[in-house]
Amino acid sequence: MPTRYPRSAQPALIIGSVAIDRVATPFAQSDNLLGGAASYASIASSYFAPTRLLGVVGADFPAPFWRRLKKHGIDLSGLQVDPQGKTFFWSGKYHENFAGRDTLEVRLNAFEKFSPVLPPAFLDTPFVMLGAIQPALQNQVVDQFAAAKKRPFILADTFDLWIHTTRADLDRLLPRLDLFVINEDESLLLTGERNLILAGRHLRKMGPRIVVIKKGAHGSLLFHADGFFSMSAYPVTKFVDPTGAGDSYAGAMIGYLASVNRTNFATLKTAVALATAVSSLTVESFSVDRLAGAGRKNIDARFKELVRITRF
Amino acid sequence: MPTRYPRSAQPALIIGSVAIDRVATPFAQSDNLLGGAASYASIASSYFAPTRLLGVVGADFPAPFWRRLKKHGIDLSGLQVDPQGKTFFWSGKYHENFAGRDTLEVRLNAFEKFSPVLPPAFLDTPFVMLGAIQPALQNQVVDQFAAAKKRPFILADTFDLWIHTTRADLDRLLPRLDLFVINEDESLLLTGERNLILAGRHLRKMGPRIVVIKKGAHGSLLFHADGFFSMSAYPVTKFVDPTGAGDSYAGAMIGYLASVNRTNFATLKTAVALATAVSSLTVESFSVDRLAGAGRKNIDARFKELVRITRF
Repeated sequence: MPTRYPRSAQPALIIGSVAIDRVATPFAQSDNLLGGAASYASIASSYFAPTRLLGVVGADFPAPFWRRLKKHGIDLSGLQVDPQGKTFFWSGKYHENFAGRDTLEVRLNAFEKFSPVLPPAFLDTPFVMLGAIQPALQNQVVDQFAAAKKRPFILADTFDLWIHTTRADLDRLLPRLDLFVINEDESLLLTGERNLILAGRHLRKMGPRIVVIKKGAHGSLLFHADGFFSMSAYPVTKFVDPTGAGDSYAGAMIGYLASVNRTNFATLKTAVALATAVSSLTVESFSVDRLAGAGRKNIDARFKELVRITRF
Repeated sequence: MPTRYPRSAQPALIIGSVAIDRVATPFAQSDNLLGGAASYASIASSYFAPTRLLGVVGADFPAPFWRRLKKHGIDLSGLQVDPQGKTFFWSGKYHENFAGRDTLEVRLNAFEKFSPVLPPAFLDTPFVMLGAIQPALQNQVVDQFAAAKKRPFILADTFDLWIHTTRADLDRLLPRLDLFVINEDESLLLTGERNLILAGRHLRKMGPRIVVIKKGAHGSLLFHADGFFSMSAYPVTKFVDPTGAGDSYAGAMIGYLASVNRTNFATLKTAVALATAVSSLTVESFSVDRLAGAGRKNIDARFKELVRITRF
């Protein structure tokens, strides 16, 4: 899948987990899946801009998974291999109607000692996504850019465990972000608000210039100094597995912003719409199958359909 | 609040309950409120078109409530007064975060014997809304139009009790409707689907030409032969009481369609957006206070803001 990027395109760097997943939904289950936030996000980003991945896997990481990421032109020079370790393993089970999920098993394996040290060649990356790893590690990445006197555009995601357990590190991170992407429940948890509009405004006061709240099948909300934007979801009818939807959403955003090398309000709205299209593909299969196989044409077709179904 | 309607405006007829409510939310409670689907819907409709109301109250119906409806120019010649009866009373309590509600007390009173007999002058109404009364009574209204060889545009709402208890009557009603407006949970209950897009398509196969699924704070979905439309919610931050939101939504739709005397896809999208604006006002107070006090200017301002926050 060789992709030609626009002349404006800058590199995007994705930092996060690469995993082997086992997933059970109310309707099916599947095993030995390529997973992890950085896998989903880097494939999504690679549709728009040259993409670099920083993460770690074990010696057991299957060759087909390497090939899958390589096929998307992703720069894997930052994907460390722990020769003594195994790859991060996650097993989860979704509840009836996909209302929440339980983590059945986590083996951090090689990921337990992961320290995101940027190769010198990555220090000039102007668009960076910090997947939902520990906030201390996310800060460590920002520290490295700061030490090199670099000021990339930084997007970060988080999840409820870090809000509960490492709040001080998260509070330190937030003012260092350009764009914070968070899901609905976590936005309420982190702010103590009961209303998503108030939560989005509150989050911006905690530091990030720009905030996106993801509402799954109900779309997403963008909070920016220049205005508010409400994006409808794509009307998915073949819903298979929500794993990675949020990661591919964030990856598509950082990739699109890198591709046009702009971050104004209008560009962010387009990025949100493209991210909506991309994540709607992700949920139509287990793992990255549909995301990786869809191709840019399907993304653009869904983007156009999103314009059509929201215009009045 | 004298309203000038456009020259195209046709009358709209609202049939349903007029009630006295007692409402408790997680934050406040209020008593002796003007309530009932037809109260909310007729005030909403009156912003757009001359509106007629068919319903029943008891001799106890407070004079200020009469005046409130009259002030909106609503034709109350079809609002029967049962001299021996009392007005329909409803008391409800919303759960934490407004996730569902319990009905604490219902006294049907005069409403128990309500039979929606159309005054001859109402038989020529070209736009009709059947509030969520028993489907047998909704059918009885349609029968009267049919007997008079009239074929108005008919919108109907329903609620879960009728889906559980009077399904056959509801199944008979659906093919007689032009527009069926139903909430998210009820659309899944009625169709057995687990996905709102599939539920909307399924409902159209059950009869109504046009279907709207309301998702509360997440917006609404329009299913029409000419296409699908996804409407974002208005970003409400002062959320007081959701009672009547759906009724004022449906009332605004029928009123707007009557005002322009058209029902094509583009017109329906505008109606959905105006209904979104109207219902966002309704939830900002108990009873019809904010809805009735807002004025057309606030509705139009919110409509314009909806255009602005959804365009990309």
